[in-house]
Amino acid sequence: MGAPDLLLPSVGPEDAEKPLYDPEILTRLDWSEVTHMKGDVTSARPGDGLCVRPLCKADYDKGFLQLLGQLTKLGDISREKFNERFDAMRSCPGHYYVTVIEDTLLGQIVGSATLACELKFIRGCAKRGRLEDVVVNNEYRGKQLGKLIVTTITLLAKEVGCYKLGLDCKDEMKPFYGSLGYTSEKGNDNTMIIRF
Amino acid sequence: MGAPDLLLPSVGPEDAEKPLYDPEILTRLDWSEVTHMKGDVTSARPGDGLCVRPLCKADYDKGFLQLLGQLTKLGDISREKFNERFDAMRSCPGHYYVTVIEDTLLGQIVGSATLACELKFIRGCAKRGRLEDVVVNNEYRGKQLGKLIVTTITLLAKEVGCYKLGLDCKDEMKPFYGSLGYTSEKGNDNTMIIRF
Ligand SMILES: CC(C)(COP(=O)(O)OP(=O)(O)OC[C@H]1O[C@@H](n2cnc3c(N)ncnc32)[C@H](O)[C@@H]1OP(=O)(O)O)[C@@H](O)C(=O)NCCC(=O)NCCS
Ligand SMILES: CC(C)(COP(=O)(O)OP(=O)(O)OC[C@H]1O[C@@H](n2cnc3c(N)ncnc32)[C@H](O)[C@@H]1OP(=O)(O)O)[C@@H](O)C(=O)NCCC(=O)NCCS
Repeated sequence: MGAPDLLLPSVGPEDAEKPLYDPEILTRLDWSEVTHMKGDVTSARPGDGLCVRPLCKADYDKGFLQLLGQLTKLGDISREKFNERFDAMRSCPGHYYVTVIEDTLLGQIVGSATLACELKFIRGCAKRGRLEDVVVNNEYRGKQLGKLIVTTITLLAKEVGCYKLGLDCKDEMKPFYGSLGYTSEKGNDNTMIIRF
Repeated sequence: MGAPDLLLPSVGPEDAEKPLYDPEILTRLDWSEVTHMKGDVTSARPGDGLCVRPLCKADYDKGFLQLLGQLTKLGDISREKFNERFDAMRSCPGHYYVTVIEDTLLGQIVGSATLACELKFIRGCAKRGRLEDVVVNNEYRGKQLGKLIVTTITLLAKEVGCYKLGLDCKDEMKPFYGSLGYTSEKGNDNTMIIRF
């Protein structure tokens, strides 16, 4: 009615809650063979006041980027830039599964990890998964949330048909990922890079 | 005219030659600081009877898959499956840069490597590159084609705006990539995997 309201967020409430990927997939994860979670915690039952779900645009206001800032350099990311990147990810179906843990009482994102998929020709046109950008808010560490989010991504990779899921990590993180089923293939476990 | 010709390929000649990504990008690569190629070889001047270009559907009939078969398990890939995968890659702009070297006299693909990009939120919504599926036909090895295709992908990653380009490799390949500018970051050079 009349002039546009300048205080309106740049996305409508409906778009703001739209998940990056179909949350239904999370309900299909098979936790039956996971033995490393205490108290039978799963993505569907993460514990009181917690929720595991796909990223949505509203998470810009729930501290998602501040959380990533505990992992690495974040840089300056405006809401517009965030939304644009979100839309670019959503426009590549089957590629980006950014998954978050929300503290629903505080409305804060307290954990996140990403499954990024790459389409291949080899192995009968296979899909390869990568576990990326794993982080738990430092005030919530040591409560299994790291194990929870990594295991969620692992099961997700299997569910969406990846033949292999890989990650790059520091020496001191090898025991953590080792305890969650990841292995180094002797003689074939190097990562090399060029920075621009 | 009359009944459809059953001998027609499943894609028309125009679609068959359509590149996976804009070949213009290859003309913009800056080879001026590359010192490791003998005879000033570049992607634009790869040598007599050779051509460096994006993958196209017609490469199905030029031995592209047989070449990948020298790298790893290929599996059964029909023309339809190949075309479908190609289209899926092309429908994610800015993600897949499968690049080939053709022996134009024989009409055979003799080298290939892929730049696969991943969109991120970190580092100001950065793009991360990965060098994947590097292979040179065994009858063409030792003629710099490995260096040529890897360097092409390296410059391509820079050109399309990746902040970092990474690869996973076996111990014995480290000197090869080391000679092309790739480094291991001490304490942060592990790759771990889960196979499904
Ligand atoms: C790594 C991280 C996600 C773990 O989260 P968390 O919620 O504290 O992890 P959990 O409570 O699930 O811990 C699981 C186990 O891993 C161990 N662990 C946690 N962090 C570890 C680390 N940095 N190094 C080695 N082991 C670690 C814990 O001791 C725990 O062991 P336990 O089950 O025997 O008690 C979190 O520390 C973090 O966000 N770190 C900063 C970002 C980062 O380094 N990400 C990984 C990049 S490769
Ligand atoms: C690796 C590969 C692409 C190299 O191709 P190529 O055309 O023979 O390489 P080049 O002629 O450009 O060789 C460049 C240099 O690397 C060296 N090199 C080549 N292959 C090597 C290998 N497997 N291990 C160590 N060094 C190697 C060469 O000796 C050469 O050194 P020089 O410049 O001092 O003479 C090719 O051997 C191949 O396709 N191998 C099978 C697939 C594979 O292993 N891919 C890599 C997966 S990580």
